[in-house]
Amino acid sequence: MGNQIRIGIVGYGNIGRGVESAIKQNPDMTLTAVFSRRDPAGVGVQDPNVKVVSISEIEQYKDAIDVLILCGGSATDLPEQGPTYARLFNTIDSFDTHARIPEYFGNVDEAAKPNQKTSIIAVGWDPGLFSLNRLMGEIALPEGSTYTFWGKGLSQGHSDAIRRIEGVKAGVQYTIPVEEAVQRVRNAENPELTTREKHTRECFVVAEEGADLARIENEIKTMPNYFSDYDTTVNFISEEVLRKEHSTMPHGGFVIRGGKTGENTKQVIEYSLKLESNPEFTSSVLVAYARAAYRMNKEGQYGAKTVFDVAPGYLSPKSAAELRKELL
Amino acid sequence: MGNQIRIGIVGYGNIGRGVESAIKQNPDMTLTAVFSRRDPAGVGVQDPNVKVVSISEIEQYKDAIDVLILCGGSATDLPEQGPTYARLFNTIDSFDTHARIPEYFGNVDEAAKPNQKTSIIAVGWDPGLFSLNRLMGEIALPEGSTYTFWGKGLSQGHSDAIRRIEGVKAGVQYTIPVEEAVQRVRNAENPELTTREKHTRECFVVAEEGADLARIENEIKTMPNYFSDYDTTVNFISEEVLRKEHSTMPHGGFVIRGGKTGENTKQVIEYSLKLESNPEFTSSVLVAYARAAYRMNKEGQYGAKTVFDVAPGYLSPKSAAELRKELL
Repeated sequence: MGNQIRIGIVGYGNIGRGVESAIKQNPDMTLTAVFSRRDPAGVGVQDPNVKVVSISEIEQYKDAIDVLILCGGSATDLPEQGPTYARLFNTIDSFDTHARIPEYFGNVDEAAKPNQKTSIIAVGWDPGLFSLNRLMGEIALPEGSTYTFWGKGLSQGHSDAIRRIEGVKAGVQYTIPVEEAVQRVRNAENPELTTREKHTRECFVVAEEGADLARIENEIKTMPNYFSDYDTTVNFISEEVLRKEHSTMPHGGFVIRGGKTGENTKQVIEYSLKLESNPEFTSSVLVAYARAAYRMNKEGQYGAKTVFDVAPGYLSPKSAAELRKELL
Repeated sequence: MGNQIRIGIVGYGNIGRGVESAIKQNPDMTLTAVFSRRDPAGVGVQDPNVKVVSISEIEQYKDAIDVLILCGGSATDLPEQGPTYARLFNTIDSFDTHARIPEYFGNVDEAAKPNQKTSIIAVGWDPGLFSLNRLMGEIALPEGSTYTFWGKGLSQGHSDAIRRIEGVKAGVQYTIPVEEAVQRVRNAENPELTTREKHTRECFVVAEEGADLARIENEIKTMPNYFSDYDTTVNFISEEVLRKEHSTMPHGGFVIRGGKTGENTKQVIEYSLKLESNPEFTSSVLVAYARAAYRMNKEGQYGAKTVFDVAPGYLSPKSAAELRKELL
């Protein structure tokens, strides 16, 4: 199919793998190559026909790829890769360090614009679809409050934090919204909620043999930023139980806007996700935004963009007339 | 405030009244005039300072108004008013006859484009925010099914249908989603659901004195299109109970997309509204889209548009940089 959008993947972890799967669900797209820092022979892509290429050769693919999906992490990969590849390709990424988004946006914009490329940053579900719903809640109900709850879901950052503690062999952490808080928000009470009142944290930890469990539990519960502001429970389990019961990456959450119109009329908007796999869902969203980047670039909309800049119609393979007829 | 967006309202029913209220919640907007077919002296606007003008004088306001919000009905008002006023003004409307949207879009587009005006049609929550969520569900989960449930809410069209029956003095109808069906959809079972399995209809009827209640009940329950495909209950009540318990216009509903990613991973997206006042919420959404029409027109995006064509950032009074910092 000569008219397919040609996608490249940079980095083949959970997200890269998810993008490979998601492209198969979108017949207007094709996966041209996976780029990796690793030895290409050692990157186990799902479809053996997919080309795996050393990242050092990526520049040769400048004209063979319409959109490059950057699947690296926000801590070290994307701050470097985003601006670098935005000079050469239209790009999509899931940059999610909220505090550094303005700076990252600026760097990518500077790289993309003079090269007539289009880069949509911070795509996924949060930032991404949740961000959209925070915006749509505000505009529909200007007088009100927005609440974001995450979970129940496995938090990668908090799981990593647990694993850095001495005596911990392995472990995972689940973020859990407090049901009572969610209910109050759904009832449009617009409550003031502390961090502790919104979420609890539940840890499943495999300790090294002979480790001091009480110390580990205490170190987790008192860890600043990550756990000390939350009610945290720590469960010690075996490696076997961890593997059997905690190897998937479910997640989800809610964006709820409660507001008032007219004299004193209560209105509530709720958006929620219930995901069996966080990385697969994020990947699926990235692929849809790749379609938008491709089209916006064709129309001369250059530079860095976010989900706020993308007219929803660009995301769908359907024509504008089909969308009006079928979905409006 | 010289930089406010100047709004005009055409038609002062429930929606017109809601738009007047909503404008007060948006400090970047001001209401310039309400246009009515009625004698202006008899149109009871909420704010006595608001100018009420006969619709016959609207052309004189061509340069005094940035966006005209058309608050008439889809059956007879909008098919006429939409194309007529799109020649002179940027417009917003809540045209909601799904089957006639393509034709209406074409007529408005033909009127607006050569006159360099921007008209966003079919705005509100369905069509509108629900349409957006049907689209966003499809693009995030290309393999899956989308379900729209309405209610519990008062349906204007079905209430009107009841009131046309002989012997009926007054009455209202509520559309109610079937809880079991909603649950199956939430569980990503992707069930096949008949019309009857998705919604029930509940009627509260005030009969004329001496009317044959059994006949009325039978006429309602067997009415084609409106009731015969549903499980319908009919309750006869007094005028006083109708006034006391059924005078507000609550509504809402759900758009749920269940789909699969990767091998066989279940993912569920749900968007829901719980509205104490359907018309006030619709009005609030209309006003936000007026802001978008104003901005898109300034940028030269002329012609008819729908919610699918509007980048979300246009809807917010915040700058793109503020949105990235605060909401992304």
